[in-house]
Amino acid sequence: MNEFLRVLTFAQARGLLRDNFPGRGMVNKPLAEAAGYSLAEDVKSPEDLPAFNRSTVDGYVVNAADTYGSSESLPSFMVYAGEIAMGQAAGIELATGQCAWIPTGGMLPLGANAAVMVEYTEKLADDTVLIYRPVGPWENTMQTGEDVGGGQVLFRAGHRLRPQDIGLLASLGINEILVKCPLRAGIISTGNEIVPVVAQPGIGQVRDVNSLALAAAVWQCGALARNYPIVPDDFNALQEAVNLALQENDIILLSGGSSVGVKDMTLEVLLNYPEAQLLFHGLAVKPGKPTLAVRLGEKLAVGLPGHPVSALMMFHIMCAPWLASERLISRTGALEFNLASQPGRDDFIPVQIIEETGGAATVHPLLGKSGLMSILALADGYIHIAYEQQGLKAGETVNVTLF
Amino acid sequence: MNEFLRVLTFAQARGLLRDNFPGRGMVNKPLAEAAGYSLAEDVKSPEDLPAFNRSTVDGYVVNAADTYGSSESLPSFMVYAGEIAMGQAAGIELATGQCAWIPTGGMLPLGANAAVMVEYTEKLADDTVLIYRPVGPWENTMQTGEDVGGGQVLFRAGHRLRPQDIGLLASLGINEILVKCPLRAGIISTGNEIVPVVAQPGIGQVRDVNSLALAAAVWQCGALARNYPIVPDDFNALQEAVNLALQENDIILLSGGSSVGVKDMTLEVLLNYPEAQLLFHGLAVKPGKPTLAVRLGEKLAVGLPGHPVSALMMFHIMCAPWLASERLISRTGALEFNLASQPGRDDFIPVQIIEETGGAATVHPLLGKSGLMSILALADGYIHIAYEQQGLKAGETVNVTLF
Repeated sequence: MNEFLRVLTFAQARGLLRDNFPGRGMVNKPLAEAAGYSLAEDVKSPEDLPAFNRSTVDGYVVNAADTYGSSESLPSFMVYAGEIAMGQAAGIELATGQCAWIPTGGMLPLGANAAVMVEYTEKLADDTVLIYRPVGPWENTMQTGEDVGGGQVLFRAGHRLRPQDIGLLASLGINEILVKCPLRAGIISTGNEIVPVVAQPGIGQVRDVNSLALAAAVWQCGALARNYPIVPDDFNALQEAVNLALQENDIILLSGGSSVGVKDMTLEVLLNYPEAQLLFHGLAVKPGKPTLAVRLGEKLAVGLPGHPVSALMMFHIMCAPWLASERLISRTGALEFNLASQPGRDDFIPVQIIEETGGAATVHPLLGKSGLMSILALADGYIHIAYEQQGLKAGETVNVTLF
Repeated sequence: MNEFLRVLTFAQARGLLRDNFPGRGMVNKPLAEAAGYSLAEDVKSPEDLPAFNRSTVDGYVVNAADTYGSSESLPSFMVYAGEIAMGQAAGIELATGQCAWIPTGGMLPLGANAAVMVEYTEKLADDTVLIYRPVGPWENTMQTGEDVGGGQVLFRAGHRLRPQDIGLLASLGINEILVKCPLRAGIISTGNEIVPVVAQPGIGQVRDVNSLALAAAVWQCGALARNYPIVPDDFNALQEAVNLALQENDIILLSGGSSVGVKDMTLEVLLNYPEAQLLFHGLAVKPGKPTLAVRLGEKLAVGLPGHPVSALMMFHIMCAPWLASERLISRTGALEFNLASQPGRDDFIPVQIIEETGGAATVHPLLGKSGLMSILALADGYIHIAYEQQGLKAGETVNVTLF
């Protein structure tokens, strides 16, 4: 088995995963269902927004020049030419000295190039309006195409659609959009000692935590998770499960059975496929040394450590960045105390974020035995001590990837 | 209509919304479907985790005292008493001077209180193992209940379940959990000028952006959105739509028709219900002055501004905090330039976050006309200039609520 050992650094392995991650298909989605999806291509505006010159205030539309010199003590006298109704073509053309009532969003008539807020006007009589303040050309208006010009690139391929993006697309009349399909991830737990969560474990047995926790983590990435039954440490049973999972998914996540020195059955099964290409087996990363990855044609199999804490951490670190449809959310804070790290290894340490007054944050590393399930449940995210670093100092600003 | 005007500050209005927001029902969910839901009650651990003393390394279990004084040059000689298989009761009792092979996660036999990593041992013969390094009591082991003790509170009511939380619950055999039901929000756009997104707007008409954008924003909060057809400015039509939406939802979001000085039909319709209780009408907030809220028995109606940018901003600021199942994500950064603000009004300004090297962030306010749809699509979040503040200074640390 030793010829299969290919221990890489975190950066090397993560690069290999990125380069070998399966591509995603694309599908047309109605805009009403597209929130949260990533764009499959650049999106350009099909038209100008706004489509016509409009007022941004309630008041009177005017020709700006007619208001020059107006003041509280010496208002301009304007001839009232009528009212512009919301949702209708302006239907009026202003001559010099004329004005018309316009609601916010109303369409500017021909001859008008500004609007005066109602607060600075007074309707004196049926046909006369006083203007107490001058306006410049196009003041209190939005011109055709001022928000978005026709043909302008709105969003780049890969952008994940948020509510405000849906809003912009809707305002341009785009009601169907080409998005990337979520990836499908099959999840297989292996090990003779693993029993389903619903079962009462006998002495020495442990519950299948990874199936549920990894499925939730896949779901959190916006990908589709599918669970398979627990596979005992048996070559044929594992091969059968992998066969099925490869057919139904883009990526398979195996956990357990990949610890060097015990059983390398996961690797054997995966390398048994003629198209198999070993990416790495073993990582200089804490936690998660026994992580492995094998490319199988257009698909990818990742073997995660059996222990749930290590499995989840390695999933977050190695898989989530490529599986998720957008970059992971992170924030910064000041490290609470010195952290030592062994050089020549990447360390990932779960942390809590303690909010301080004034918006600052203290980052509290959660130390303790690496197998504690409760540590991850306490954690807000993790920090990374890189390969070449010997540690981090108290007070140093660190970047926390939230999970 | 003026007797209905009740203009409040942002803080007053937000407090009223919080206090009058509908409560949420609860439902039992299988753990496999519970990720993303909020807990309806505190959850306590039903048992100890781990359930038995286990090894955290591959190696030999020993009585720690037998290894004291061991070194590279003077190893301890131990009698090999057998192998502990994974997933089985230990089945061995160690006498003084004895050791047994144990895999990571294996159950400690009686008589053992520590494990020595395989790296610091050597199997000399069938019945003899050399130990090159001493271990203290319970070193390289995890004791019963060390991770989580039976009866310990794991999560408080309201906590939103993340993948690692699902993992912890699964490892304790909890496979069904009481969670809060998501709130249901009905969305109604009003206005004679509004046409569906699929329609080509005539001159002076605008597309119904709010239905899609607000639905996406509701969905992003983890709540359930339901859209209703566009309602023209007609009392009876609006009353009918509100009747239906109130039956089918916990909260209704109306947009358009609430601008003071134009039409107050939304407010009239809402106050026509005998149980109606006006919370506020008008806010000293930019953008979003015409926002209103009416409590209707156990339900709540919120009238948002008609302009999509204001509607979305006001939704994020006023509704999202109470609709969402967890607090909104925020991060800090240094303000790029001075921002002035009018005292006596709360200002909310969309911003971009520019990542700097070393984890710091610059917060770039997106100024420009408040009606620009493209500004929200460029924004990563917003900052808040409070009522009593006159502005913010360049370089000041500001808190950005992400959206």
